[in-house]
Amino acid sequence: MTLSSLEDLRAAQARMRGHVVRTPLVPFPLEGFWLKPESLQPTGAFKLRGAFNALLSLPGDARARGVVAHSSGNHAQAVAYAARQLGIPAVIVMPGNAPRLKLDLTRALGAEVVVVGDASVDRERRAGELGRERGLTPIPPYDDARIIAGAGTVGLEILEDLPGVGTVLVPVSGGGLISGVAAALKLQRPDVRVIGVEPELAADARDSLRRGERVAYPAEQVGATLADGLRVQQLGELTWAHVRAFVDDIVTVTEAELRRAARDAALRARLVTEPSGAVTVAAALYHRAELGEAGPLVAVLSGGNLDPGLPVELLTAGEG
Amino acid sequence: MTLSSLEDLRAAQARMRGHVVRTPLVPFPLEGFWLKPESLQPTGAFKLRGAFNALLSLPGDARARGVVAHSSGNHAQAVAYAARQLGIPAVIVMPGNAPRLKLDLTRALGAEVVVVGDASVDRERRAGELGRERGLTPIPPYDDARIIAGAGTVGLEILEDLPGVGTVLVPVSGGGLISGVAAALKLQRPDVRVIGVEPELAADARDSLRRGERVAYPAEQVGATLADGLRVQQLGELTWAHVRAFVDDIVTVTEAELRRAARDAALRARLVTEPSGAVTVAAALYHRAELGEAGPLVAVLSGGNLDPGLPVELLTAGEG
Repeated sequence: MTLSSLEDLRAAQARMRGHVVRTPLVPFPLEGFWLKPESLQPTGAFKLRGAFNALLSLPGDARARGVVAHSSGNHAQAVAYAARQLGIPAVIVMPGNAPRLKLDLTRALGAEVVVVGDASVDRERRAGELGRERGLTPIPPYDDARIIAGAGTVGLEILEDLPGVGTVLVPVSGGGLISGVAAALKLQRPDVRVIGVEPELAADARDSLRRGERVAYPAEQVGATLADGLRVQQLGELTWAHVRAFVDDIVTVTEAELRRAARDAALRARLVTEPSGAVTVAAALYHRAELGEAGPLVAVLSGGNLDPGLPVELLTAGEG
Repeated sequence: MTLSSLEDLRAAQARMRGHVVRTPLVPFPLEGFWLKPESLQPTGAFKLRGAFNALLSLPGDARARGVVAHSSGNHAQAVAYAARQLGIPAVIVMPGNAPRLKLDLTRALGAEVVVVGDASVDRERRAGELGRERGLTPIPPYDDARIIAGAGTVGLEILEDLPGVGTVLVPVSGGGLISGVAAALKLQRPDVRVIGVEPELAADARDSLRRGERVAYPAEQVGATLADGLRVQQLGELTWAHVRAFVDDIVTVTEAELRRAARDAALRARLVTEPSGAVTVAAALYHRAELGEAGPLVAVLSGGNLDPGLPVELLTAGEG
């Protein structure tokens, strides 16, 4: 396993300039910490960074043949969007039970959508077949050096804007985001604390870090969290190597806390956050004592894509 | 009437650096225009820029004595916040019918709150008295060169980030924001179109521009718009001079459109916008044909402060 180097991250940053939004650090009013709102990317999530870095890294012939990805969520939108911007053909394998809106949105971004059953393994297999049959390059969602380096530009930007940062909170799912962000921070400022945040119901990374080996959670359990972007059952191999090398700690939040945090983010910081993005806000607002003492705090808000109908629930059921 | 110069605006920008959020241009997905989200300022609105520029412009003895402002809304929060950051005593005169939350928030920001009746004229008189009795410097909400120059830094930033911008949409109320933004743009790029946006129910600036003289709307009428930040009955003297000199056109939107735009901004651009901030989003989404043809379009989203309880209505009643 080769960990990301600062050179990888800086090359990604140079490559992606002008393609993604340079998100600001936004102060959370009266709470003394900052948000890094990746919800403001054109597809509403940090995933766009990895997708652009991966696609921009492809040689010309691979670009001409096209790419394939399988995802039901933000990675699908990200690959479709980046491919369209770069004029690269994209095929996205999506589940039959995906919300109609997500299928429509992916098609609206110009991607060819292939609908395959409901199970993740079926999509993965079909994506592999399409890759071989049509010469498409697979763009994995997180366990990939280009995806990690792209996501890591979030960490480079945090240090540019707040050189004295003390602690950074990052959501953990497949681990692409925290791997890149932690590498960007620790390779420049080893004293910065990097803390992952997971829902209690999907705390496989916390357990992995504690036991020193990669732990998986059952699908039924991770499926129960409202944070649909964090339902991955375990870290990837490459992301686990990064988490082990660079992450100081992982804390968890309850389902009630992530709902309340989404409401607080909307009403107090004026940002729409998806449940998966709200975990770090919840940790910053309600678990400060667990984070240790290490100077200015930044919470990475990973995305803001709400299913229509959900916002009302989030903004009213906050005290649940 | 002396109009703002580019030197005034650049001096304001230099003075305020590090005190306000450098907001990014955020693409509105699939719609081909950008938002400039001033909702991400720590007090949730562009008003913070003028407040900081005015307070930072005060000589030392005036700073020591303190400032006074009268406002029921974003200007109150802005002056209170900037004063606290700069260690300047602040007195805010607020109406008795202001939401409890706004009174509490202003006090939480360290300001002394003086509650005076419900009528705007009473607050203005009391603020004047307090100024004389206690030697406090009044900080007016919009009709002031320092406030206009501070707000104008929004325009400087738009040109920095999108030098080829063709059209900029700005909400119009007292006119401080559009005066500064229009000056910043027109003094550098006279070909950029600057278009104001008002609710149909409070279209005094549109009528003023058409007739070539400052027009006032009755309080009962402007009071009927959901856009509470845009209920000012007429432009100020100085802001009218700027609007006449620098603004190309003013368009209006309906109440149903501004509700729908607030919902679209939340679900599609992941930004919480107050009704007053949604007018430009409504113009960009539903009135594009009226805006003329002039290249890349930016809509200034002026603020994101929702009364608690309101978001639900906004996010569900969008089709009303």
